[in-house]
Amino acid sequence: MSSWRESIRNVEPYVPGEQPRGASVIKLNTNENPYPPAPGVTRALREMDPDLFRKYPDPSAGMLVDALAERYGLGRDQIFVGVGSDDVLGMAFLTFFNSGRPVLFPDVTYSFYPVWAKLFGIPYETPALDENFCVNPEDYKRDNGGIVLANPNAPTGIRLPLDQVEGIIKANRDSVVIVDEAYIDFGGESAVALIPRYDNLLVVQTFSKSRSMAGMRIGYAMGQRDLVRALHNVKYSYNSYTMNLPSIILGTEAVRDEAYFQETTRRIIRTREEARRRLGDLGFTCTDSCTNFLFISHRRADAARLFEALRADGIYVRYFPALRTKDYLRVTIGTEEEMEIFYKFLASYLDRI
Amino acid sequence: MSSWRESIRNVEPYVPGEQPRGASVIKLNTNENPYPPAPGVTRALREMDPDLFRKYPDPSAGMLVDALAERYGLGRDQIFVGVGSDDVLGMAFLTFFNSGRPVLFPDVTYSFYPVWAKLFGIPYETPALDENFCVNPEDYKRDNGGIVLANPNAPTGIRLPLDQVEGIIKANRDSVVIVDEAYIDFGGESAVALIPRYDNLLVVQTFSKSRSMAGMRIGYAMGQRDLVRALHNVKYSYNSYTMNLPSIILGTEAVRDEAYFQETTRRIIRTREEARRRLGDLGFTCTDSCTNFLFISHRRADAARLFEALRADGIYVRYFPALRTKDYLRVTIGTEEEMEIFYKFLASYLDRI
Repeated sequence: MSSWRESIRNVEPYVPGEQPRGASVIKLNTNENPYPPAPGVTRALREMDPDLFRKYPDPSAGMLVDALAERYGLGRDQIFVGVGSDDVLGMAFLTFFNSGRPVLFPDVTYSFYPVWAKLFGIPYETPALDENFCVNPEDYKRDNGGIVLANPNAPTGIRLPLDQVEGIIKANRDSVVIVDEAYIDFGGESAVALIPRYDNLLVVQTFSKSRSMAGMRIGYAMGQRDLVRALHNVKYSYNSYTMNLPSIILGTEAVRDEAYFQETTRRIIRTREEARRRLGDLGFTCTDSCTNFLFISHRRADAARLFEALRADGIYVRYFPALRTKDYLRVTIGTEEEMEIFYKFLASYLDRI
Repeated sequence: MSSWRESIRNVEPYVPGEQPRGASVIKLNTNENPYPPAPGVTRALREMDPDLFRKYPDPSAGMLVDALAERYGLGRDQIFVGVGSDDVLGMAFLTFFNSGRPVLFPDVTYSFYPVWAKLFGIPYETPALDENFCVNPEDYKRDNGGIVLANPNAPTGIRLPLDQVEGIIKANRDSVVIVDEAYIDFGGESAVALIPRYDNLLVVQTFSKSRSMAGMRIGYAMGQRDLVRALHNVKYSYNSYTMNLPSIILGTEAVRDEAYFQETTRRIIRTREEARRRLGDLGFTCTDSCTNFLFISHRRADAARLFEALRADGIYVRYFPALRTKDYLRVTIGTEEEMEIFYKFLASYLDRI
């Protein structure tokens, strides 16, 4: 065995979620948006000049950054963009969590946090959510090397009220607190409003959910200048040009159409509330999710078995077999039509067991 | 001062190259291709369905990987794709250079290598190129934690013959040897042919130069299965979905049009050889570049001053003020028309000094 093998960075291979293809599949497993991107995106795609591809893109993605800055009432030097929020979050772990002290995030949350920590050799601890999957803010008021909170949390969908988020930020002025708001547009109060007051707060959002652009890979972080500058310095030391031209152009169009964004997010929220009622009628319990997914369980139906039965019928949802989540399924909110098919399957399944 | 600032990863901020906009500029400064991407790219762009953007892209970028595997006669498990070759190279540094022993690359080469080493805390040493900017293979036959060779080298354009590359790979079976072939399609012999024989060889190429797609950000690495698997494991631990849908679709089209690729690279090579003659007539010396750029100097013309004079006239070239490169300019090969304007300026400039 060649000894170069001994110098390979040791990671647990992460297997990305299933991406079934085929028109007949109902895909409620990766929290994608059931509606297409804003009409302006299509227009800009049709008008895009392929001759521009031969040149490097603007490394600062200025057009996209300006659109985001205007949308959120921030300066352009308060916005950092990357290749999906995973890129932004990974870069933030690499940039900010170098103290050697453990970074804190909940035991049940976005499964990539421990993966990045391991990749970059960052120590971490995972305070347990309470029995209702809620964060206890007191768990985050002790010595640490940084804090990461998904708000609303995944895969539970439960939000932490903004005053409690602020309490955690305030109690940790010597740590960077990352609030991962991938699902904030479907409910919950954004911590963006707190940015002027806290130099240790970084808010991360994404185009993959509420802006219907998972396929384009755009995420962004917002914070005070010094935090964003530090992220840029590390980013430019890794890869100057990450946002390709289509991402910059089409992402900008997606941000500019606020009306379409409001309309589609409202529609998903409406479908979610309807789903909560319909699933309740079928005997499911749902966490109080304010995202584009529900986290559901049923007294009579084993979650793993239901997951497989749905899958066999071409309905994909997500199952997390870990101890605390093994009785639940995470179900993305699809179109009304997709959800009707889902309810119908569940009713028939419950009749059979 | 909040103590989170002390835990920021310490990097020297890298400032990306100038990207002047405006139609009148002649841009010979970033080694972009002067010709548009293949016609199939435009066709696929026009036919692209924006509704697909709402879904996550195929994390394995299977379509693009298959096209590359076919083009290079490799298995699909021997190809790794990333967001430009910077992403691929950065990921390779992170994956393979963890032995604690110094990684070796020349003192004059692609300026990002020391930046990645510093970012990830990798020790490195930089054997000096000889007085003609050539690599001495003997410098790379000693204890090390890895080797990185740009072939042809940048910014000199000089190639290392394949038998000497092989000698280095063979002498280092316990290290990963990365051969960065960003410019190989314009001359030089690719080390891809050596992949079946060496499990420690990783060859990296890019769509940014010979495939006219710098704006799309696509790079790739080729090597034996175990090397590529190790890269994938680290990559999936950082960001599962990096290649966005346009990159996958349009990149595939670019690879498929071999005739257009051959035609445009040949044309650039022809213009380069013409440029070498014309610049020689003007008294310039050129290194023996087999890339899409020339590395030139002039006995009578101070390089820094000429750089500024060109810039003032709207002609952008690249100047590296470091000790060994300060007498040279790196000039990307543009269209015949752009080069004529460049020669004309130089003739007039040399008359004036």
